[in-house]
Amino acid sequence: MTDFVRRVLRPENPDWIIRSLLDVDFYKFTMGYYIFTKHPGVNVKFRLINRNKKLPLARLIDEEELRAQLDHVRALRLQYPGKRVSTNIYYLRGMDVYGDRMFSEEYLKFLSQLEMTPYTLNRAGDQFELTFEGPWEVVTFWETIALAIVCELLYRKLMSQMDREELEDLYRAAVSKLDKNLRTLRKYPGIKFADFGQRRRHSFLWQQFAVQKASKIMGGNFTGTSNTWMAFNQDLVPIGTNAHELPMVLTALAPTDRAKKSAQYDVLREWGSLFPHNALRIVLPDTYGSRQFWRDMPADLADDVAHNWRGMRQDSGGAVEEALAFVEWLKAHGVDPIKDNKIVIPSDGLDVDSMTEIDRSLDGIIGHPFGWGTNLTNGFAGCHPRGGELAFVDGVCLNLTNDQLFRGQSLVIKVESANGNGAVKLSNNIQKATGHPDDVARYVKIFGSEGQISQDVSV
Amino acid sequence: MTDFVRRVLRPENPDWIIRSLLDVDFYKFTMGYYIFTKHPGVNVKFRLINRNKKLPLARLIDEEELRAQLDHVRALRLQYPGKRVSTNIYYLRGMDVYGDRMFSEEYLKFLSQLEMTPYTLNRAGDQFELTFEGPWEVVTFWETIALAIVCELLYRKLMSQMDREELEDLYRAAVSKLDKNLRTLRKYPGIKFADFGQRRRHSFLWQQFAVQKASKIMGGNFTGTSNTWMAFNQDLVPIGTNAHELPMVLTALAPTDRAKKSAQYDVLREWGSLFPHNALRIVLPDTYGSRQFWRDMPADLADDVAHNWRGMRQDSGGAVEEALAFVEWLKAHGVDPIKDNKIVIPSDGLDVDSMTEIDRSLDGIIGHPFGWGTNLTNGFAGCHPRGGELAFVDGVCLNLTNDQLFRGQSLVIKVESANGNGAVKLSNNIQKATGHPDDVARYVKIFGSEGQISQDVSV
Repeated sequence: MTDFVRRVLRPENPDWIIRSLLDVDFYKFTMGYYIFTKHPGVNVKFRLINRNKKLPLARLIDEEELRAQLDHVRALRLQYPGKRVSTNIYYLRGMDVYGDRMFSEEYLKFLSQLEMTPYTLNRAGDQFELTFEGPWEVVTFWETIALAIVCELLYRKLMSQMDREELEDLYRAAVSKLDKNLRTLRKYPGIKFADFGQRRRHSFLWQQFAVQKASKIMGGNFTGTSNTWMAFNQDLVPIGTNAHELPMVLTALAPTDRAKKSAQYDVLREWGSLFPHNALRIVLPDTYGSRQFWRDMPADLADDVAHNWRGMRQDSGGAVEEALAFVEWLKAHGVDPIKDNKIVIPSDGLDVDSMTEIDRSLDGIIGHPFGWGTNLTNGFAGCHPRGGELAFVDGVCLNLTNDQLFRGQSLVIKVESANGNGAVKLSNNIQKATGHPDDVARYVKIFGSEGQISQDVSV
Repeated sequence: MTDFVRRVLRPENPDWIIRSLLDVDFYKFTMGYYIFTKHPGVNVKFRLINRNKKLPLARLIDEEELRAQLDHVRALRLQYPGKRVSTNIYYLRGMDVYGDRMFSEEYLKFLSQLEMTPYTLNRAGDQFELTFEGPWEVVTFWETIALAIVCELLYRKLMSQMDREELEDLYRAAVSKLDKNLRTLRKYPGIKFADFGQRRRHSFLWQQFAVQKASKIMGGNFTGTSNTWMAFNQDLVPIGTNAHELPMVLTALAPTDRAKKSAQYDVLREWGSLFPHNALRIVLPDTYGSRQFWRDMPADLADDVAHNWRGMRQDSGGAVEEALAFVEWLKAHGVDPIKDNKIVIPSDGLDVDSMTEIDRSLDGIIGHPFGWGTNLTNGFAGCHPRGGELAFVDGVCLNLTNDQLFRGQSLVIKVESANGNGAVKLSNNIQKATGHPDDVARYVKIFGSEGQISQDVSV
């Protein structure tokens, strides 16, 4: 077991947070392949969004340290110049869990030369303005990488305020909690999950530990990890398909309201043509609300999706409600979710309670492997020895308790514009919406707001 | 840099010597593929041979420790049961440095289930009888694996007799020597070499260090490593093609003298049909003497080899003489060794002096990338602080000096029989011959002994 406390207590020689360009969510490779193949060269801007304005990121994270960590990522390569061979590229080429040669040689060549774009970092009061601009097929990789850096720097700072005994208490409690959660989950034969927690992990080492532990305790019911590096190093299935940025960019680029409305479906058509393997054909219906998405899908596409796609990922709205709506939709298209082996992948702020409840509700109705993120790789809530007390950092009170800090923070990196057009996400939960207010208003007109809820965002 | 001394000084918790089934010479995969495809199921017996009878292996290596290390290898897998994916297999499938898909899916499946055969270990006086018997396509992997284990256990024992200060002196001297050797070699632009030293390495960690150092100091003139694990972990080209066991087994299986004589050529025909990539088409001419090999090669095969193969490996006889004989042979077949980019790979007991001399002699005549083995990964001669003194182990004098012990030992693991027929190697150097005396006599009658020399074997 990693000696976490010892690693924290040598701040003079901190580890690089990102050690390999494989330390990124696998869906960046599947989406990257889609972007590279179908929409190369779109100029996009991604931006860090801290949904919790009470969290003064720029007071907690040293700007120079953040720059150093981001610069280090820019120095990483999947294949280093002067090297004739690359194990990373061999791995991606030789991977066959999603069928033979899921990536083209052209894309592998692109990856072998991948170099992350520059970033722009400014301080704006207590927050950072952190943006990434450049060709979409490159910029896309920044999302989970930069989030993982910001999160780990935050926790390093918080832990630098603690002494050895407190750190030992913190980690002891976190190990126990993780262990207890996993032992609870293993009692439910219907609960399978993959790790989706790179972006908001407590740390690189902690994710590695959590993944090892999940694999050991859950056995085959731990289905893999979204972190490509951890998949590589632990012989796990890399998990991931697509995210909101695909419809967001295509919709931003679409010139008319009608074209905007249908861009969400163009993504599916193009995706399906690129990835014949069923397991990669996962619909993400909620970019502009899942109600309109299912209802207005063109009949030919709906027929294809219902019969030839594996299922959907649920990232907003109630997991059970969204799953049941999908089940109804499947049945309306002549598909039996159980017999035809369909799944819904709940991935929205899960914890042990919500997973067991969802499992109970969907048992016998549809398969429901979970994508468990933040609370798996950053399950530190309740573990701080002075969790209820207000936190002080360098002598200044933060007006947040330690427990409010030692948990996954509501940080995202979202596409803001594509070729200069504002990008918008509406989601099923208006609190997860992103985009300029004028654009959001226009999108609401196009897509409607039927089925929209408003729900606090936990992570 | 690895703290070698610290690793030695914790004998209560020794490392496993072989940590992965990739920690094996790459030619075991190329030969293994040949065997699996062309000659599956041959029952072979391999045997450890200690050419230096003065070295009392069984007094220096604890039999139980040897068993534990060998048993550990038997527990290793390239893909572990219950794992849906294997990074090792992805690596081997995705490797393209020798062309696209060098291994068939059938062979990759075989590898994913590879489990090393049992061994037989007995003590015979001061020596071990260590044999490996079973299907050739599995047993072949034992060669470099078991040698690496025997060698490292030997040095561990010798080092257990030294105190910290002596160990520090030993390693300091060895690091300096390695560094000096590499800095000498880099001055010769014509000298390129690959690491061939897994089998007789000082230790796993030391080979890793030597490979890193060679890569750093030699740059592009360090062409790769025969150790698949090191190639995997350091993004190096895995190097290796074929060895004497191929003609030895095929000749042993051949029913008549005539068939025995031509078996050495059957290997080439079959090899060429399996590996289209030029860089893998390397002739090893000396199994039964290179003179008769070149002279008697059938004309159609000779034409193919001269024009469509990359070159030869020289493993016995004088490197320059053997290379020049090959050059003459090439010219007689209308091939210009320089213009047509042919090579000879000297791989017989090289050191800095012999490499610089060979380089001088072959400069402008034929390319000559070296396969540098034992003196790269086990260049400890002259490094022991009491090198000239007789060695004592557990209070007993060995009648060998420390310098005679702290160097590569003349240990080999050779195929002894195939389907019950004795296997023979004659080599260009009668001191490298192996086989039962009656069989050797018969083989000398078949192949002749023209061009044979007798030369002490250093490693």
